[in-house]
Amino acid sequence: MLFRLVIGAVFLASTVNADPLPSWTEGANKTSIIEFVEAVSDPASPDYVTESDRIAVFDNDGTLWAEQPVYFQLIFAIDQVAKMAASDPSMLTSPAIKAAADGDMKAVLASGKEGLVEILKASHANMSLDTFATDVAAWLETARHPKTGQPYDEMLYQPMLELLRYLRDQGFLTYIVSGGGIEFMRVFAEDAYGIPPQQVVGSSTTSTYEVIDGVPTIVKGQELFFVDDKAGKPVGIQHHIGKRPILAGGNSDGDFQMLEWVTSGEGPRLGILVWHTDGDREWAYDREGHIGVLNRGLDEGPDRGWVLVDMKNDWSRIWK
Amino acid sequence: MLFRLVIGAVFLASTVNADPLPSWTEGANKTSIIEFVEAVSDPASPDYVTESDRIAVFDNDGTLWAEQPVYFQLIFAIDQVAKMAASDPSMLTSPAIKAAADGDMKAVLASGKEGLVEILKASHANMSLDTFATDVAAWLETARHPKTGQPYDEMLYQPMLELLRYLRDQGFLTYIVSGGGIEFMRVFAEDAYGIPPQQVVGSSTTSTYEVIDGVPTIVKGQELFFVDDKAGKPVGIQHHIGKRPILAGGNSDGDFQMLEWVTSGEGPRLGILVWHTDGDREWAYDREGHIGVLNRGLDEGPDRGWVLVDMKNDWSRIWK
Repeated sequence: MLFRLVIGAVFLASTVNADPLPSWTEGANKTSIIEFVEAVSDPASPDYVTESDRIAVFDNDGTLWAEQPVYFQLIFAIDQVAKMAASDPSMLTSPAIKAAADGDMKAVLASGKEGLVEILKASHANMSLDTFATDVAAWLETARHPKTGQPYDEMLYQPMLELLRYLRDQGFLTYIVSGGGIEFMRVFAEDAYGIPPQQVVGSSTTSTYEVIDGVPTIVKGQELFFVDDKAGKPVGIQHHIGKRPILAGGNSDGDFQMLEWVTSGEGPRLGILVWHTDGDREWAYDREGHIGVLNRGLDEGPDRGWVLVDMKNDWSRIWK
Repeated sequence: MLFRLVIGAVFLASTVNADPLPSWTEGANKTSIIEFVEAVSDPASPDYVTESDRIAVFDNDGTLWAEQPVYFQLIFAIDQVAKMAASDPSMLTSPAIKAAADGDMKAVLASGKEGLVEILKASHANMSLDTFATDVAAWLETARHPKTGQPYDEMLYQPMLELLRYLRDQGFLTYIVSGGGIEFMRVFAEDAYGIPPQQVVGSSTTSTYEVIDGVPTIVKGQELFFVDDKAGKPVGIQHHIGKRPILAGGNSDGDFQMLEWVTSGEGPRLGILVWHTDGDREWAYDREGHIGVLNRGLDEGPDRGWVLVDMKNDWSRIWK
C-alpha cells in the first residue's frame, strides 16, 4: 500500500513537471513559448488571458506538415487528373492536362498559372463536395511522397503536434489558417492535428446547394471564392473566428500579415516562424524558390519579437 | 444535520428532474424536442450521436429575436445614416438617404432595393471593422423598439434561450446561421445568446486587411461577399462549420433549404420552425408580407417531420 502511494506520488510529480514540448531542444525559443503559454493561462499572472480569447492560428504547408518538392495539394491534383484521364482520355485536351496525366511535374510547372488553374479545376471543381472528400481520402490512403516514401498525412512535424496539444491542454482553441483548400484540409486535419472542420480556414471555390435527384447536395464550383494567403489571412481569420487570435505560427512571407495582425493587438502576443534550416532531416530553404519563400519574416521578424524556430537546432526530432 | 441532508437530497432530485424548457407548454412539440435531445446525447440510445457531431444551427431574425416591423439591422442602418447626416449634411444626396435621415421608414422602403443598398453602404461599409462594431454597440445601448420600448437585444424569445442553453448542456455546439450581417450579430450574440463570434454565420461584405498609419486594420468594403439566405444557408454552414448539423431551427422560407439539408442527412435529425401566431404578445404573420414569409415551410414542413412551433400555444412565455 505504501509502495503504491509512493509510486502514485512519483507519477503525479512527473505528470505535473512533464515537459510539454519534448521534441524541442532547451533554449531561448522553447523558453519563450512556454513562458508565453504559462503567462496567458495562469489566472494569477498579470498577462492572463480569459479562455475564450486564447486562440492560436497556424499555417499548414511548411508549418505543420512539409511542403517540398511542391505543395502536397498540387500533387493530389496531378495524381487525380492522371486517374481521371486513365478512365476518360477525352479530357486530354491541353498540354497542362496531358503533363499532369503523364505525372510530368516539370511540364506541369512550366504550364504556368493558366495550366495550374486548369489542373485544379479538373480535380477540384464541378463535383459534389462528398465526391471530392472521398477522392482526397482515397489519395491519402495510397499516395506516397517521392522522397520519403511516406503517406503525405504522416509527414507532420512532431514538435508542432506537441505545441498544438500543449496549447489545447492550456485552454486554447487551435485553428489552421492556410492558403491550401479548406475542404482539402478538412479531410485529414482532425486525424492529423486534432483540429475539427470548424477550426479550418483556407482558400475555397464558390459552391452551391442543389437538390439532385431528390438528394440535397453541396456542389463545388470552379470560380475562386476566397484566397486565404498574405493579406487574405487576417481577413479569413476575422471572417471565420470573428476575433483577433493571440498566437500565430507560420513559415513563409505568405504568413507575414497574419503574424503582423496577431502580434500587434493589445496584451500578450506571440508570433512563431518555422525556419527550414535542416537539409539533412527535412529541406533547407528560405529566401529563394517557388515554395515557402521567407524574406520579410527573416528581415523583420526578430525585431518584431517573433520566435524564429531554427528547425536544425531547435528541434531534436522533426517527423511525427 | 438530517434536515440539511433531506433538503440536499430534494434539491438534487429537483435538479436532476428540472424541466429544461420551462417556458414551453407541455405537448407534442415540447416532447419531440426533448426526446430528440435525450436520444442523441444518451450513449445507451440507438440514436446516440458523438459529441463532435452534435451541432445545432439557428436563424436569428424571427427565430431567436423579433423581426417586426422590419429587420432590426435595417433600423440600425437608418438610425446610423440619420446620425451621420446630422454631423455631415453633405451626404444627403439621394432620396433614400434623405428618407433615412428623416427616419421616414415608409419612404425608405419605397426607395426599393437600390435605396436600401445605398443606406446599407453608408452605414455598414468603407470603415474599419472596429468602428462598425463600436457603432452597433452604441446603437444597441440607446435605441428602443418603436412598439415595445425595449432595447432591441432584449427582444429575445425566452423559450429559444432555454433551448440553446439546454442543447449546450447536452454537449451541442450552437450556431447562428442568419441572413443578417455576420459582424452586426457578433456584437451582441455572445451576451444575448451565449454564442461566441466563431459560431456566428451570416451575410457579409468583402473586407480587406490594411496597415493604416502603422495600425493593422480590417476594413469593411461595400461589395457583397456572401448572402447567407435560402440556398446560401447550407453553403454558409458548410463553409464555416465543415459538416452537416443535426438540428436546425428557423421561421421563414429563407430557412427552408437549411432545414431541408440538415434534416435529410443520415441518423437522427430535427427541424424546428417557429410560427408567429401570437398577435397579442408578439406579432401574427406567416404567408404574406415583407418579413419572415412562411409558405413552403407550412406546406411541406409537417410532412417532412419538422416541429412547427405555434408561438401562441406552445410558449407560455415569449419574451426574455
